[in-house]
Amino acid sequence: MRDWISLNMTPQIGPRAATKLLEKFGSAENVFHARRGELESLRIKPESIESILKREFHDQAEEELNKVREISGDVLVLDDGGYPYLLREIADPPITLYVKGDWQSCFDAPCVAVVGSRKCSTYGENASEMLARDLAANGICIVSGLARGIDTAAHRGAIAAKGKTIAVLGTGIDQVYPKENARLVNSILESGGAIVSQFPLGTPPLKDNFPYRNRIISGLSLGILLVEASERSGSLITARLAMEQNREVLAVPGNITSKNSFGTNYLIKSGAKLVQQWQDVVSELSPEIAAAILPPKITGKAEKAAEQTESVPASLTENERNVWRKLSADEAKQIDVLLEESKLSFGDLSAALLGLEMRELVRTLPGSNYARKV
Amino acid sequence: MRDWISLNMTPQIGPRAATKLLEKFGSAENVFHARRGELESLRIKPESIESILKREFHDQAEEELNKVREISGDVLVLDDGGYPYLLREIADPPITLYVKGDWQSCFDAPCVAVVGSRKCSTYGENASEMLARDLAANGICIVSGLARGIDTAAHRGAIAAKGKTIAVLGTGIDQVYPKENARLVNSILESGGAIVSQFPLGTPPLKDNFPYRNRIISGLSLGILLVEASERSGSLITARLAMEQNREVLAVPGNITSKNSFGTNYLIKSGAKLVQQWQDVVSELSPEIAAAILPPKITGKAEKAAEQTESVPASLTENERNVWRKLSADEAKQIDVLLEESKLSFGDLSAALLGLEMRELVRTLPGSNYARKV
Repeated sequence: MRDWISLNMTPQIGPRAATKLLEKFGSAENVFHARRGELESLRIKPESIESILKREFHDQAEEELNKVREISGDVLVLDDGGYPYLLREIADPPITLYVKGDWQSCFDAPCVAVVGSRKCSTYGENASEMLARDLAANGICIVSGLARGIDTAAHRGAIAAKGKTIAVLGTGIDQVYPKENARLVNSILESGGAIVSQFPLGTPPLKDNFPYRNRIISGLSLGILLVEASERSGSLITARLAMEQNREVLAVPGNITSKNSFGTNYLIKSGAKLVQQWQDVVSELSPEIAAAILPPKITGKAEKAAEQTESVPASLTENERNVWRKLSADEAKQIDVLLEESKLSFGDLSAALLGLEMRELVRTLPGSNYARKV
Repeated sequence: MRDWISLNMTPQIGPRAATKLLEKFGSAENVFHARRGELESLRIKPESIESILKREFHDQAEEELNKVREISGDVLVLDDGGYPYLLREIADPPITLYVKGDWQSCFDAPCVAVVGSRKCSTYGENASEMLARDLAANGICIVSGLARGIDTAAHRGAIAAKGKTIAVLGTGIDQVYPKENARLVNSILESGGAIVSQFPLGTPPLKDNFPYRNRIISGLSLGILLVEASERSGSLITARLAMEQNREVLAVPGNITSKNSFGTNYLIKSGAKLVQQWQDVVSELSPEIAAAILPPKITGKAEKAAEQTESVPASLTENERNVWRKLSADEAKQIDVLLEESKLSFGDLSAALLGLEMRELVRTLPGSNYARKV
């Protein structure tokens, strides 16, 4: 443990260099038994080599761990059972993870990142809070970066739903940045959430640390939802990293006249899934998770029963009910036949089919054929 | 000609029944030589059969054509050379097309439909006018339905760009619906546009006629752009028809909190192309049309020259210029190498790559490799 913490504290040793060292030497302990020549052959910076050779941070690491535990935190290291498995999967995972709060149950929940611009519109803030709230209410843990704007709204939304949320920091876990979010950090911890950072205690908000934070945000998450991002927003970088990490990338659309939605609309154009409501996020996660969270679809059996009693789904218009009754799940019907059977005009029939399709009750097959969806 | 017009005027003979008749008898003329038994075997409505057998509308058809010409219109029939070839392609094309204005040059231009809700937001109206204006300014003929809201804004946008626009009517071409658009019709005609309808003169705005109008809107067009549509908007039906007609379906996204954008966002979620600007529409049309309208991409040769003189595309940030210089079109570079060569931080490098990618100057290859786009 002490070896991992010291290695993480070593100057110029980021996740990439650490991975190189671990690949070569197998463990943090072995790194500190390496010879100068071996370290030099890995193109490790001279400054880092000196630090490793004289075990510069070994005493400090002991102290660091004590301090972390004093503030009720903990440190997870890469070969630890508690280290989140999704994060371990990414290229160059952080070798230590400082954690605080109910991190274990947060990591056990299906995690989704909700992120976006610091400078956001009221729309973005509302959309972030609303989607995070609905996702959290349905058992999703909301991961975000504690930044102003979309991130803050996402954490707030999860808390409002009495759900779990993880704040990944670009500073040490004993720091709060921006300072105005000190109360938010407390609320996160009080509501069973967690705060997480790869950086040693006392690390200030250095600009260069935030991309590392972003890798953890997406690394912890099954999918990443970008709520609002302008053309040059940093959160677009998070989305790019998420793609490289094979995470689902989702985005909230917005008016094309809003600069704040340029990046999200662009992402959707490039293949990110468009999100209108929380279900759109869940349905993109693994089939097991989606099935566990989303209401069960009508089974073939229930369907048959519904057919027999002529019971139709609630909240349909009269025309939709009419058309729904004419359809079955077993055999598709041509639009001509439906036109004749329903006695509806072409316009009304089309509208009814569309309404049914939007409620995911009907599916369209090639050649204007329609069947019930099961 | 007279036979086609009479057939089109026959009660209960819509495009579907007309197609059945033409498939059986080969021409409008032959339909009027059919025997009762032959007509009955096609399940043509009795009312229509009587009308056909007694050639009920033959005299009126002559008169109709005269009247059309008096108002400087014309009638195109299905086997006419002037009949638009894209419309002829659809299932059950209208057998006659009443036209007025500079229809020939409109049909010759690449046509794109711009449609949406009658009840729209200011955002939708602005987006419609802006996109139609930009498309029309670039040689696209804007097809729409003369309805209130999005349609009206689309026609106006085309006129503002001194471009071409076709209004497809659900009434006869001697009628205007809604009445408040009478001046708009004049402006369309004055600016080299056209009005088009499949319905005989004097046909009032019957509810059931509008789906037929919608089929012509998409039938005339290479692609259809839906600007704003609520959950139950009729223009979603037009989009569905367009898909069945194998047209490109495109949509403008909007805030998920706006009911007016529910339908367009839903369409994008279901696979329609998201449109942020007019170029997004053109790039979905055939490669020939896109190439003719969009500015030429840098060729390999020009690229090489640019590389030699180190001339970089305009309007890049300093970091973007830095990274661009390090990249080539011939060989991809790993992000590690770029990190070292550019001396940028990971965050700045990612931002620069993203900026270049958004300007379509760089492409990302698997495994965080980057190359110039040619």
